[in-house]
Amino acid sequence: MAFHYPNGRLYQPTNKKQVEDKQTKKINHRSLKNNSSVIYGNRGMTLEQAINESNNYYLAVKRAVIHKKPIPIQIVDVSYPKRSAAVIKEAYFKKASTTDYNGIYKGKYIDFEAKETKNKTSFPLSNFHSHQIEHMKACRDLGGICFTIVRFSSTDELFILPFNLLLKYWNEKDFARKSIPKKEIEKVGVKLKNSISPPIQYLDGIDLLYNL
Amino acid sequence: MAFHYPNGRLYQPTNKKQVEDKQTKKINHRSLKNNSSVIYGNRGMTLEQAINESNNYYLAVKRAVIHKKPIPIQIVDVSYPKRSAAVIKEAYFKKASTTDYNGIYKGKYIDFEAKETKNKTSFPLSNFHSHQIEHMKACRDLGGICFTIVRFSSTDELFILPFNLLLKYWNEKDFARKSIPKKEIEKVGVKLKNSISPPIQYLDGIDLLYNL
Repeated sequence: MAFHYPNGRLYQPTNKKQVEDKQTKKINHRSLKNNSSVIYGNRGMTLEQAINESNNYYLAVKRAVIHKKPIPIQIVDVSYPKRSAAVIKEAYFKKASTTDYNGIYKGKYIDFEAKETKNKTSFPLSNFHSHQIEHMKACRDLGGICFTIVRFSSTDELFILPFNLLLKYWNEKDFARKSIPKKEIEKVGVKLKNSISPPIQYLDGIDLLYNL
Repeated sequence: MAFHYPNGRLYQPTNKKQVEDKQTKKINHRSLKNNSSVIYGNRGMTLEQAINESNNYYLAVKRAVIHKKPIPIQIVDVSYPKRSAAVIKEAYFKKASTTDYNGIYKGKYIDFEAKETKNKTSFPLSNFHSHQIEHMKACRDLGGICFTIVRFSSTDELFILPFNLLLKYWNEKDFARKSIPKKEIEKVGVKLKNSISPPIQYLDGIDLLYNL
């Protein structure tokens, strides 16, 4: 089946045009020009797709309401053609001041990022910028549950990295190492199993980690 | 001082070009082509600006972490000029499946919309679409605090409309009235005072309404 954009242009998947970046990347629409590496354990989904589908599942079974936030953009020019949808003609990506996902689970405020790395033995802190750390710290201080879903793409392993562990390494990064050892994430975090429905059962990991 | 967009074009405020719409409207960037009516009690700010500034204040004093979500858009075409920021060349506004604001306050998940009406005696339910009602219902059922900040622009009055009152009228709208009487909002909700800092002290209203 062919899909068309509101302007009538044919939709063409862009995978073939995409180029891989070198080390690690954030999995969101900003990486349009990068290749989103595929989670083979999850029927060809990217990490973002797998999390979104998990969130849809959790919403459908009324277990949690968690959404990915839209990409922040700065709109510069919009045209309003007659009898047709408004078209954004010029806009720019803005740096996110918060994390990608938030919502509610068991009455708790949930706030997290999803990241993946091609590194085999550690997770680079360069995956975060200071605004995101500050945001998660502020949420944690008010009683929120903050974490990162980390994927090691070389082994297709998924972990929940609790915010407190991330913060410990973040605070030390200027005079110590600039990445979190995978062994530490295995010890302090929770390893997630791939499953069918939802693709990533991360709330089970949250139950375990935070005694919910 | 002159501001320039990343492409070098001069920033020009668009107020003068804007046209007022007839009855009510949602205050967000979608209303770029509409005039955002000004809250005179709030030093010329729109409702959205006043809420955003209040959220910045609450964040600064560590009372709450609440953000407006970015406008959901569907990106169709992006160009990546060399040595310059990526430019979105074609994109469309998408219908929001959630509300505009969410975050954490006193350990609770907070979720709300901001709307204004030029009506004098009632608040039209046409300000909402069913996805937003479903979203707030799901959040409430999981223990979240959901509400709408309603502004009656003719009198510059602000109220917190609790979700339960909205839902009551929403459920009856197909065989009864299609708006909520202002008197009912005054009785069941909380009237908010304009102030200097934050411009809208809506968390005080939340404390009162939900015994926090």
